[in-house]
Amino acid sequence: MPGPVQSIERAAAILRLLARGSGRLGVGEIAASLGLAKGTAHGILRTLQGVGFVEQDKASGKYQLGATLLHLGTSYLDVNELRSRAINWADALAARSGEAVWIGTLLDGKVLVVHHVFRPDDSLQSLEVGALLPLHATALGKVLLAYDTQAAACLSDTELEPLTRRTLVSPTALRRETAKVREHGFAAEIEESTLGQASLAAPIRGYGGLVVGAISITGAVDRLCPSGGRPDPALVDFVQNAAQMISRDLGAGRW
Amino acid sequence: MPGPVQSIERAAAILRLLARGSGRLGVGEIAASLGLAKGTAHGILRTLQGVGFVEQDKASGKYQLGATLLHLGTSYLDVNELRSRAINWADALAARSGEAVWIGTLLDGKVLVVHHVFRPDDSLQSLEVGALLPLHATALGKVLLAYDTQAAACLSDTELEPLTRRTLVSPTALRRETAKVREHGFAAEIEESTLGQASLAAPIRGYGGLVVGAISITGAVDRLCPSGGRPDPALVDFVQNAAQMISRDLGAGRW
Repeated sequence: MPGPVQSIERAAAILRLLARGSGRLGVGEIAASLGLAKGTAHGILRTLQGVGFVEQDKASGKYQLGATLLHLGTSYLDVNELRSRAINWADALAARSGEAVWIGTLLDGKVLVVHHVFRPDDSLQSLEVGALLPLHATALGKVLLAYDTQAAACLSDTELEPLTRRTLVSPTALRRETAKVREHGFAAEIEESTLGQASLAAPIRGYGGLVVGAISITGAVDRLCPSGGRPDPALVDFVQNAAQMISRDLGAGRW
Repeated sequence: MPGPVQSIERAAAILRLLARGSGRLGVGEIAASLGLAKGTAHGILRTLQGVGFVEQDKASGKYQLGATLLHLGTSYLDVNELRSRAINWADALAARSGEAVWIGTLLDGKVLVVHHVFRPDDSLQSLEVGALLPLHATALGKVLLAYDTQAAACLSDTELEPLTRRTLVSPTALRRETAKVREHGFAAEIEESTLGQASLAAPIRGYGGLVVGAISITGAVDRLCPSGGRPDPALVDFVQNAAQMISRDLGAGRW
């Protein structure tokens, strides 16, 4: 069986590089970052430009991601079964709980947000679909970690960044936390990502019971944990119920 | 100067193919569609799977777009200058007009929606960012056609699909329409895309006065064209004003 196609791997690495940081890089910076000869990087960039995956800024000559990727990314959402099965349940969860609802799946050691329902009030909110969130500081991430030993193993090798003074940054604390998630069937994150905010998440299972994603509600810590900093059991119920309904629709069967 | 890298072009063609239609294809279907040997297609697909650009459905063995593309697509939005400069003006236009606001740019002979503000009411609306709309049947598209001779030339070779009985399907009618857009500085589309709906759009100019996109409002034809089917001049003013403010922020200068 032939190995992977090197030029495609290099093209993908360039696109990932452009998706990080400021988003605009010159051919020299790209070549240096990836350890490529400048001519090689240039040939790949010109090809990526030809297919609309990168654009070149006329004034600076720097490269940035191209418009075709937006269309491909949206098309991914259209075929994403987790998202299509979850949309109605996510709307219902937002209505019942009065909070914002997020659905996430694992990507590259992070949580990829594949669906987001705004909190049903008139507050200004920005859509987070496509964002990558840290596993260790979100309820979605804790759920995904709890049921994916590979993700958990990867994370123990990396530095856990503190987002607030309540973020879990020790691998031991995080392991204890994910054991609790498996025991209770839900995860809570209380001011570990943003001060004043909390979130509650439960696992979504696909065929055979495999955890394929997680669903969460996010909102003010006073509403989600009204008494003594413990999650409101009624809200936990709503989240677990939504997760079970989506799992059923995904063919998880009984578990 | 070396030519484009063939394997990257083929990889991009596979991704575009998967973004069309049902979204799941077998390796045989992909190879046949693109005129590739099955082994070649398989090697590219395995590489794309390795970098997260495609996923393989375990049950059917078919391929679909991968989650990494969603993240790259969203990152494109973050670096898109048109969108970042336009966001505040788009919110203001939605508030002033009471209608949904869309911002579009040209991609592959279509309008790519790069921003969408919901109509400020409680109605159920779905986000259209990333969608591709036809040039000839939308106000955004007519504006982009009016100021891009290349796009207009491409379109005259293709069959113009009727979406309603009011869609302009003759190249002559469309040419007359785009001349009117250039004369008046805005485009109207009245039930040409969806019965009961209308939209009004104006050009957004970038550095040097080049048209880089368009902004539109979309809503019920009774509200946008209240008297005798002609666009409400106050609403046209709002749209043109927003377009001018964004153009100024993009460095268009006086025009």
